[in-house]
Amino acid sequence: MNFLEEKILSDGTVKQGNILKIDNFLNHQIDIGIMRQIADELKHRFHDVEVNKILTIEASGIAIATMVGNLYDVPVVFAKKGETANSTDDKYVSHAYSFTHKQMNNVFVSQPYLNSTDRVLIVDDFLADGQAVHALIDLVHQAGGEVVGIGIAVEKGQQNGGRLLREEGYRLESIAVIEEMDWKTQRIDFRH
Amino acid sequence: MNFLEEKILSDGTVKQGNILKIDNFLNHQIDIGIMRQIADELKHRFHDVEVNKILTIEASGIAIATMVGNLYDVPVVFAKKGETANSTDDKYVSHAYSFTHKQMNNVFVSQPYLNSTDRVLIVDDFLADGQAVHALIDLVHQAGGEVVGIGIAVEKGQQNGGRLLREEGYRLESIAVIEEMDWKTQRIDFRH
Repeated sequence: MNFLEEKILSDGTVKQGNILKIDNFLNHQIDIGIMRQIADELKHRFHDVEVNKILTIEASGIAIATMVGNLYDVPVVFAKKGETANSTDDKYVSHAYSFTHKQMNNVFVSQPYLNSTDRVLIVDDFLADGQAVHALIDLVHQAGGEVVGIGIAVEKGQQNGGRLLREEGYRLESIAVIEEMDWKTQRIDFRH
Repeated sequence: MNFLEEKILSDGTVKQGNILKIDNFLNHQIDIGIMRQIADELKHRFHDVEVNKILTIEASGIAIATMVGNLYDVPVVFAKKGETANSTDDKYVSHAYSFTHKQMNNVFVSQPYLNSTDRVLIVDDFLADGQAVHALIDLVHQAGGEVVGIGIAVEKGQQNGGRLLREEGYRLESIAVIEEMDWKTQRIDFRH
């Protein structure tokens, strides 16, 4: 069992509706030691890949992206969600359905911050249906860049995002993959 | 002139309507070297203060907060904005007017992540009218904690946030304070 699986078992809670609540260390309060280990582990797993940009989506992906960017010493870009009207810049725009907010969101990056020479490592805290990651891939491709990898802290293996991305040929590394969980017993099984 | 003032002069753009556009290195694309220097400088300015938690607000404050938390090796909490309905947790809730979105936003933190023993350093990328920072202060006080300092990358000195916070007795450190800017000449003057 790796450090993140151990942390999920010790500090996480399973809620009814297949919800894994780990916002005490990952995406509301941030345990900076765990964040450091996540960044180290992602860099280790992608050690053979040349990366010149880290891309994530606001808000909770930013902490991991910042730590990973700090390790690689490359720029970090975070895609924004929602209205695109506040800026007059030209943008790459894609779309992702938010299951949390039950609506389709615009996902966008100003054009100067993604380029055809970019070798992008996409990172995020959670992967479930993969809507956000697919939108980020779309943005990189609109700019003519290459997605060299996708690094995720926690993948919900019961949902389809991970399977689809692997079938599409992307190199996806998830540090912890939830196979099954049960809110009545608080049991969490990981995929290995 | 310090590193951040130099970076603003070299990479920033002044837009009509008193807008300083530095999203090429601070809050959309992140220059990780500058972010590291911002964190180092904030830790240096608060070297005589005991800090056990970093607090910011989503989204663009998260990168600075993560780098500062990494230096201090303390937990980072980011307050969330918007609807509070998605979680059943008890929360501390405050309010901040968003000039960007022209609406009043809820700003909240789940109760377990702010405590009466917390000595909180609030950090953010921008300080203008101080609405967000005042909401964060309110959240810390609701929890019975203490705000030991406020660390800001760029303060817009023409707006009132900084003056109010200093009058209220908070220890506020802004690495760059804009005194005046002119979109026609692209001139930017800093306060010293």
